[in-house]
Amino acid sequence: MPDVVDLIRAKRDGVRLEEADIRWLIDAYTKADVADEQMSAMAMAIFFRGLSPAELRTWTDAMIASGQRLDLSAVPAPTVDKHSTGGVGDKVSLILAPLVASCGAAVPQLSGRGLGHTGGTLDKLEAIPGWRAGLAPREIVDLLSTVGCVICAATGDLAPADRKLYALRDVTGTVESIPLIASSIMSKKIAEGTQALVLDVKVGRGAFMRERDAARELAETMVRLGTESGVRTTALLTAMDVPLGRAVGNAVEVAESVQVLRGEGAEEGERGGAGLGDLVAVTVALAREMLALAGIEADPAEALGDGRALAKYREMIAGQGGDPDADLPAAGHVRVVPAAGSGWLRDLDALAVGTAAWRLGAGRARKEDPVSAGAGVICLAKPGERIEQGQALLELRSDEPARFERALDALRGAIEIGPEPPVISPPVLERIS
Amino acid sequence: MPDVVDLIRAKRDGVRLEEADIRWLIDAYTKADVADEQMSAMAMAIFFRGLSPAELRTWTDAMIASGQRLDLSAVPAPTVDKHSTGGVGDKVSLILAPLVASCGAAVPQLSGRGLGHTGGTLDKLEAIPGWRAGLAPREIVDLLSTVGCVICAATGDLAPADRKLYALRDVTGTVESIPLIASSIMSKKIAEGTQALVLDVKVGRGAFMRERDAARELAETMVRLGTESGVRTTALLTAMDVPLGRAVGNAVEVAESVQVLRGEGAEEGERGGAGLGDLVAVTVALAREMLALAGIEADPAEALGDGRALAKYREMIAGQGGDPDADLPAAGHVRVVPAAGSGWLRDLDALAVGTAAWRLGAGRARKEDPVSAGAGVICLAKPGERIEQGQALLELRSDEPARFERALDALRGAIEIGPEPPVISPPVLERIS
Repeated sequence: MPDVVDLIRAKRDGVRLEEADIRWLIDAYTKADVADEQMSAMAMAIFFRGLSPAELRTWTDAMIASGQRLDLSAVPAPTVDKHSTGGVGDKVSLILAPLVASCGAAVPQLSGRGLGHTGGTLDKLEAIPGWRAGLAPREIVDLLSTVGCVICAATGDLAPADRKLYALRDVTGTVESIPLIASSIMSKKIAEGTQALVLDVKVGRGAFMRERDAARELAETMVRLGTESGVRTTALLTAMDVPLGRAVGNAVEVAESVQVLRGEGAEEGERGGAGLGDLVAVTVALAREMLALAGIEADPAEALGDGRALAKYREMIAGQGGDPDADLPAAGHVRVVPAAGSGWLRDLDALAVGTAAWRLGAGRARKEDPVSAGAGVICLAKPGERIEQGQALLELRSDEPARFERALDALRGAIEIGPEPPVISPPVLERIS
Repeated sequence: MPDVVDLIRAKRDGVRLEEADIRWLIDAYTKADVADEQMSAMAMAIFFRGLSPAELRTWTDAMIASGQRLDLSAVPAPTVDKHSTGGVGDKVSLILAPLVASCGAAVPQLSGRGLGHTGGTLDKLEAIPGWRAGLAPREIVDLLSTVGCVICAATGDLAPADRKLYALRDVTGTVESIPLIASSIMSKKIAEGTQALVLDVKVGRGAFMRERDAARELAETMVRLGTESGVRTTALLTAMDVPLGRAVGNAVEVAESVQVLRGEGAEEGERGGAGLGDLVAVTVALAREMLALAGIEADPAEALGDGRALAKYREMIAGQGGDPDADLPAAGHVRVVPAAGSGWLRDLDALAVGTAAWRLGAGRARKEDPVSAGAGVICLAKPGERIEQGQALLELRSDEPARFERALDALRGAIEIGPEPPVISPPVLERIS
């Protein structure tokens, strides 16, 4: 039996870990034979020393082996999923899953809840009356076979080692390690049983990865890891400097997703521009990647325009107990942020808007906190639009008026207005395969 | 109140920690408000990033502030202590404390127990019937004022943060960090209240520091830290490639110490040579440093030769309840290792001999294990001596004959005999002040 202190010291000193040692370590940690204080020291050593491709593959495989794999072999259509590293206003999954399913693929999207300034897909969908995130493995397979898409909570027996390690990294300053991020994301996605996967790695001040080089390294690491593990994987690097679309929150993002599924923003999307344009552009680009990996020839822009994607969305929501026609919860209090001057809206800081929405009640600080369905921020203008002094730029929504002041604090310095129009960078920056 | 995750991330990313943050961290860790898994991640980050001199000073001071300082102001003589990083056969303290006290200084030597292949001073002295390591602060001050020296266990309220952190580092692969080693050693020594301190930093394959550069860095770090904290501090780097003296164990090292206090090995000591010579040379060199720091002009070699040091040793043992005339425990079983050939003894590996003594029962694997007083190894020959095939080179002693085989395993390859005499390096390598 390996000695965990020897393994920590080996990694610390830059020695590669043997496959058997990694498998032993993850298994012993899952069973609590290796203590938290030992695993956090190991995680910090990995932060500094990294993991080789072979170590990373074993590490990820051992995390998958700590639990059950979902068996999707009974699903008749090719399976393909998407994972996003998280952004402000990132409601892409809500549109993308039914869009791709409407083109003939099966999308098994197991998702998480939000923590911090980026929201979680499940929190958003839970704004819909009746909708439930928790599905049994058999229900997941049934819905994929009939409807073709599902967005639900990861079942507790998928990669339990990852759940334990992620919680540890969160409190020990060891989150920001590319191999640990990659193995955490990919162990869950591979255990989910999908045949193909597209990664949306967000880059910018509203994203977890602020620097393009680091984002590219993460994307490349995950694409290699997925491919080597038998999952066809590609990645897009997409911009996350301003909120994606106009709505940031839970119910407000569901409503905006339905707008896009109705075909709104399609023209803007072709220009990759402001308003809904960036959201449509990112969604369609990801849908093209997913369909290509699934071997399906179809134009997702067409499926958005002709109502097929919307019909699939309604099926998906109803399939999980939700009422797609129900009124969404609305926050009782609204505060408008007017423009301080006239000119071009040059900048709108995604991190500030995400933090404001969080403080308004849309997000949680600890994982046991509830979220407000109605709270959030609507970006009435986005960079590249002309504005007049006094015009409403942002609409803040909350159940508790006391929250407005702290949200406004977060927005200080977030808005830039100037005499020249800004240069708008394209929403999709790079493709990694 | 600082956020511990922010502090870990700051250190991880190479940002210097503020004084108030370090004080908060050590205090919160002592109170268990900061968890072990957080402190081990911090320790690993310090392993990679180090601590600046100012950070290290604050870190050490905060460890001292976690408990009580011993007040030695009532002791009439100048106080001076010695710390060794530990070596095989290192019984220097047993000779040095009474030697220096016999020259007029007061030596408050608070010591530890052994773990692993190097023995602990307290374990050795506990071989003497009646002798007790545990003294109250008042007893320490009384013995220093009357006898002039004391070797005892550190009281539980000296730097409790260090005790907790040391135990954590031991199981998390974070022992080998120069600033953490320096602050651990120096916090205990400064809290002990000594006015001056000489460090014996051992270098070689039988020492914690195997490389001379690393040993020098540790010595320089501790000398600076002691000096800046108001304790006059110097250091000697001394060789630890072969056992110091001939005896390795507990009772056997006490007996050898008495031999040296009787004046044996003095001539060898002047040549720094084999047998007892290296032990005498290191002891006298450290005594000269200590007396110089205490401002006392005296020749320790003379005090060894004329019986003053031996008389002081007998007082010290009796002062702590021991009977200096009592027979020492002897192990019931002896196994001799004969020379495989004739020629010069060229090498005798200290780590192998230390490990053999440990396996014979002289040391402990876990801190709650008991040790055997009589077990150990006698090096009947040392490098530089001529030997004949079949001549006894080592005498192994144990209470349990079943232990001999594993001890012999440890000694495989440890002895080198050849036709040419070896080059013997001097026992004192370097002085750091």
